[in-house]
Amino acid sequence: MSLNFLKRSMSTNIPKKIKSIIYSSHNVDDCTSVLSVLNHSVKNVNENSIVLRTLAFPINPSDINQLQGVYPSLPEKTLDLGTKEPSAIAGNEAVFEVIKVPEKKESKLSIGDWVIPLHSNQGTWTNFKILENENNVIKVNGLDLYTASTVSVNGVTAYQLVNKYINWGERAGNEWIIQNAGTSNVSKLVTQIAKAKGIKTLSVIRDRDNFQEVANDLEVKYGATKVISESQNSDKTFNKSELPKILGDEGTIKLALNSVGGKSSSSIARKLEKGGLMLTYGGMSKQPVTLPTSLHIFKGITSAGFWVTENNKKDPDEKRANVAEFIKLYETNKIISSENELEIVNWNVNEDSDEEFLNLVKKGITSSGKKKLVVLKWH
Amino acid sequence: MSLNFLKRSMSTNIPKKIKSIIYSSHNVDDCTSVLSVLNHSVKNVNENSIVLRTLAFPINPSDINQLQGVYPSLPEKTLDLGTKEPSAIAGNEAVFEVIKVPEKKESKLSIGDWVIPLHSNQGTWTNFKILENENNVIKVNGLDLYTASTVSVNGVTAYQLVNKYINWGERAGNEWIIQNAGTSNVSKLVTQIAKAKGIKTLSVIRDRDNFQEVANDLEVKYGATKVISESQNSDKTFNKSELPKILGDEGTIKLALNSVGGKSSSSIARKLEKGGLMLTYGGMSKQPVTLPTSLHIFKGITSAGFWVTENNKKDPDEKRANVAEFIKLYETNKIISSENELEIVNWNVNEDSDEEFLNLVKKGITSSGKKKLVVLKWH
Repeated sequence: MSLNFLKRSMSTNIPKKIKSIIYSSHNVDDCTSVLSVLNHSVKNVNENSIVLRTLAFPINPSDINQLQGVYPSLPEKTLDLGTKEPSAIAGNEAVFEVIKVPEKKESKLSIGDWVIPLHSNQGTWTNFKILENENNVIKVNGLDLYTASTVSVNGVTAYQLVNKYINWGERAGNEWIIQNAGTSNVSKLVTQIAKAKGIKTLSVIRDRDNFQEVANDLEVKYGATKVISESQNSDKTFNKSELPKILGDEGTIKLALNSVGGKSSSSIARKLEKGGLMLTYGGMSKQPVTLPTSLHIFKGITSAGFWVTENNKKDPDEKRANVAEFIKLYETNKIISSENELEIVNWNVNEDSDEEFLNLVKKGITSSGKKKLVVLKWH
Repeated sequence: MSLNFLKRSMSTNIPKKIKSIIYSSHNVDDCTSVLSVLNHSVKNVNENSIVLRTLAFPINPSDINQLQGVYPSLPEKTLDLGTKEPSAIAGNEAVFEVIKVPEKKESKLSIGDWVIPLHSNQGTWTNFKILENENNVIKVNGLDLYTASTVSVNGVTAYQLVNKYINWGERAGNEWIIQNAGTSNVSKLVTQIAKAKGIKTLSVIRDRDNFQEVANDLEVKYGATKVISESQNSDKTFNKSELPKILGDEGTIKLALNSVGGKSSSSIARKLEKGGLMLTYGGMSKQPVTLPTSLHIFKGITSAGFWVTENNKKDPDEKRANVAEFIKLYETNKIISSENELEIVNWNVNEDSDEEFLNLVKKGITSSGKKKLVVLKWH
């Protein structure tokens, strides 16, 4: 069976209808109220179109903030889907399988490839996606479903946080990153990516009854060099007595990664070496970043922000390169699967009603706990 | 009368004793308690020495913090002055007159030149200074006494704040600086240096009964483009309604200069354009710098520190160049005298007792109001 025959036979896989979760307005109090399921016709598909079948999509905080209308990056709402009101498909991240490639021209994509969107705001809470330009996706063959479906946001975020801002390696083995929210998926990825480069990590986690158990897990399974609690983090005597022992005679902290804010942010900033950098990429405590004036003036600490969406818009090729590097680290067992970070929600694409689909997504938005990954069951 | 004869005749001006205010310990609660007057012999003066006579020295906050022991840069205490305990001469800034130049070699200095110290921690609360290396001073001929005696700290600070961090001129006439503490000497210098470059300034000052009078003074006399109050600064509706009118259609704020901290710092940071920079060089409110997480992440605001002492240590030639540029601005009437910023304290060098000298300095440290400038009366 020739490849051409295979390609032609696959073209029968072009869907007649696509099922997507859409919205045409925003609601900051109950964003699930703006969602509906649309079964829309497939338009403008031709022999050169690429067809993607969705394998899984996560429900990210930024997706929810978009529905609430409080996120500074939003997709354009259009009438392209045949709706009365301008609308957009929800979601920004997913992993897809290529089920049709262009018939009459060469393509870098092959049937069966796994791909993720290059850009945000493309709409991913859908069962199929039609692509006119193969350059709008990145291949992620080699990753498992859970890691592939979260590499675009968390994976690239962690990769850039570690690699983009600091010249590492000047003092091999003595360079540290400190990060709060040490149990988050991004922090665990930072830990592993840093370790692969020979950079040590000091991870701060909230105080909890099973602190030692969680700390051991981060140290043994993910390779965190040392885990401390928020109460240790904010204790100034700890900085003088314990911290030097942890860092060793030559060790200093060059980079602080903040996704919490408030007191936690000033406490990790205090541990930076002279001239050190703090990058803020989240604010879970809802408290502002707080920095004593003296840290700015006399220690030369710089505090900056990090937004993966903005970085990728400015330099999409960097994202492609980051994903390729990430996959190499995964394939050489430097990064373990993100499966444990996710709670799986199954969508039986061919059996569930529209209402069932909508409800499982709504529940995924409103329920707490781990990040929800909607996995599409096709058979 | 040949120059050589003049030089030789001036060498009779070498003092036999030098009178300085010294300290050998620190006291954070009452730093005046560590001060004493020392009349020390002049050692190691030879034909190649340079002798400086002090004209005036300011009492800066950083001088006081040094005496308190809370400043991160301190002079080395030595036995060179002939004291029992290792001690140092107080003060970091002054303007001197050259009264003796090297007799047998060429010098860039001439008798009568006015000079300031290149580095901090040299000890300036003294009537004479002996110099072995002429490269340790910068000529300030052309400035008046008040501007010359404050150019090393405030002048260079203002010059670097405006010029060192931003590429100006991309959108001529539409680029702004916002600064709080708009009535401070540094802010007034920033205003004038910015105006000379075609950069507009939005100066925030504390609410006060005579707001309009002070605002007019800053706008008319110093060239501030617009002056607003702290209550306007912290009013979010002001940002939406009034600010765009002030900036104009094309105007944006590229740089925020913070010497206050707390709410004032977050309020000026909020007005920055995307990707803007806030530099903190003081913290008069004693409140930390506070930045909403979203300013860091979504607006890409960077918050950094500024310390003129550190900059000058790293790059003394930059300070030389800055002072030269500052003098040019002064000579072309772009910068007015700092006389009004200072309260003059006269020291009658040849008449006042040691106790009177000590007391006038102690009073200069403890009394509030304008910065004190000790002016030496030689006749």
